[in-house]
Amino acid sequence: MFDTATMALDWLGVIVFAITGCLVASRKQMDVVGFALLGTATGIGGGTLRDVLLGSPVFWIREPAYLIACVIVSTLVFFTAHIPQSRYKFLLWLDAVGLALFAVTGAEKAAQAGADGIVAIAMGVITATFGGILRDLLGSESPVILSREIYVSAALAAAIVFVALLALGAPRELAIGSGFSIGLLVRAAALHFGWSLPRYRQRPGMPYHAAK
Amino acid sequence: MFDTATMALDWLGVIVFAITGCLVASRKQMDVVGFALLGTATGIGGGTLRDVLLGSPVFWIREPAYLIACVIVSTLVFFTAHIPQSRYKFLLWLDAVGLALFAVTGAEKAAQAGADGIVAIAMGVITATFGGILRDLLGSESPVILSREIYVSAALAAAIVFVALLALGAPRELAIGSGFSIGLLVRAAALHFGWSLPRYRQRPGMPYHAAK
Amino acid sequence: MFDTATMALDWLGVIVFAITGCLVASRKQMDVVGFALLGTATGIGGGTLRDVLLGSPVFWIREPAYLIACVIVSTLVFFTAHIPQSRYKFLLWLDAVGLALFAVTGAEKAAQAGADGIVAIAMGVITATFGGILRDLLGSESPVILSREIYVSAALAAAIVFVALLALGAPRELAIGSGFSIGLLVRAAALHFGWSLPRYRQRPGMPYHAAK
Repeated sequence: MFDTATMALDWLGVIVFAITGCLVASRKQMDVVGFALLGTATGIGGGTLRDVLLGSPVFWIREPAYLIACVIVSTLVFFTAHIPQSRYKFLLWLDAVGLALFAVTGAEKAAQAGADGIVAIAMGVITATFGGILRDLLGSESPVILSREIYVSAALAAAIVFVALLALGAPRELAIGSGFSIGLLVRAAALHFGWSLPRYRQRPGMPYHAAK
Repeated sequence: MFDTATMALDWLGVIVFAITGCLVASRKQMDVVGFALLGTATGIGGGTLRDVLLGSPVFWIREPAYLIACVIVSTLVFFTAHIPQSRYKFLLWLDAVGLALFAVTGAEKAAQAGADGIVAIAMGVITATFGGILRDLLGSESPVILSREIYVSAALAAAIVFVALLALGAPRELAIGSGFSIGLLVRAAALHFGWSLPRYRQRPGMPYHAAK
Repeated sequence: MFDTATMALDWLGVIVFAITGCLVASRKQMDVVGFALLGTATGIGGGTLRDVLLGSPVFWIREPAYLIACVIVSTLVFFTAHIPQSRYKFLLWLDAVGLALFAVTGAEKAAQAGADGIVAIAMGVITATFGGILRDLLGSESPVILSREIYVSAALAAAIVFVALLALGAPRELAIGSGFSIGLLVRAAALHFGWSLPRYRQRPGMPYHAAK
């Protein structure tokens, strides 16, 4: 029953990320095949890298329905992209849902594959963020990890909470729910209040030697 | 006998893509090692990603001759790059051959590994296009998938025709030949007539909210 | 005993590359999570791609201490980045050590996995350079392989010497030491004397047809 809910959220994550890929495609005025390529790469990119690193079978090769869903969603967005653009704020919140969800499901898949806690956390972050990195590389956008706004940190928080609770013996449902909630809250607060972490700045009094 | 022909075309595809990588290297005025790196990455990149995703042994690890051929071709191009540049049109056609061929052989390798039809089509597109994506990323070129001209769609057409014919029970030779021909024809028409698919444009009357 | 030395140098390579990733993060004024992401990706990127291509278990999944070390180093650099920047020259030399070391250990891991000589050389180059390529892609820097200075060639020299000596029946310690020394010397000479290989230039008298 909870597994069904997790799977539903997992699907939601794939579809939401696919839509964000299509939004980049729309800004680059791509054709429908470009939409499908960028939408699919963004939707399944994170989970694909996770599976390859873990040595597990890639999830969409075993369940091609993910692939079909990404293509259908991308095609729909191509013909109706004025809708999600005018609802961009709504989309950012869906994206936050996807980020928090993938961080937890990515960490869980790694833990189930027998990975160490720190590895599971890394897999959560990779699953949550690689789709967006791929989208930005393929679409020649400024990489999301360079953004000023808290983003990767939200995924990190979600994965850490999930793995820590699991290690403390908490029931799986509680760990998933807590990790997801924390990740979503952190990202939501960053979106709502414009939160960002302190950034590196050259220390005063130190001469700057242009690196590299 | 037909397998020999397929292998010959496969080799041709690797070499042609290696040459396109070298052309980018020549525009960046790289040294001979840069030529070898960019030529090899472009020549074997698509097939490498296909094998990694399928969980198959990477083809050039089992048959290092592919690697050696890419290095030799890249070195030759370094010292004679004025030749392919002055024959750029001829090269575009060879590139079209490689694209159509890799789309079919990529889909076939996935089908032989037991993948679903839609997965086989995706693998065909990945095999045909990833080398070029890698070339453009490493060479800081504008990504090929952002180009206005039909390119990915030709690979998609080739893979769909091949997989559909195979599913309909057509002999393997016919499926390969048809997929390859369709892909080559679509790309050739795009090159000759400047074909492109309709691109996404903001619908009239809708205010543009800058996405992200 | 020698294995311990190799392992120590391997660790040094991971840490040095992690620091170079952090230097790029500091130039982009990232937050501490950005430092950890870029530092870790640069430190473990080359070895990760090597393991994925070889079909071996990814090294930091089996030994998460590598991951932890990258995160700790990145955090330290975030709070003290004025130190390595004012010692940038020292860092370039450490980077040269990492490059030469990874070229040899990458080739050795491939050889131990039963790969052909030419494949082992390729794996050495991939291990030594992919971390830097990843760093430059994620940090929106000009790719290192486009630099005028000898870099990839030093890795290539190290891997070739190591594989050639091994093939000639030299003891493993001698092959590792020689490959490492040659790679370091070539890179050091490039750094000290500004060595670069001849770059491709349009031949005189040939009209330039802008390639794609």
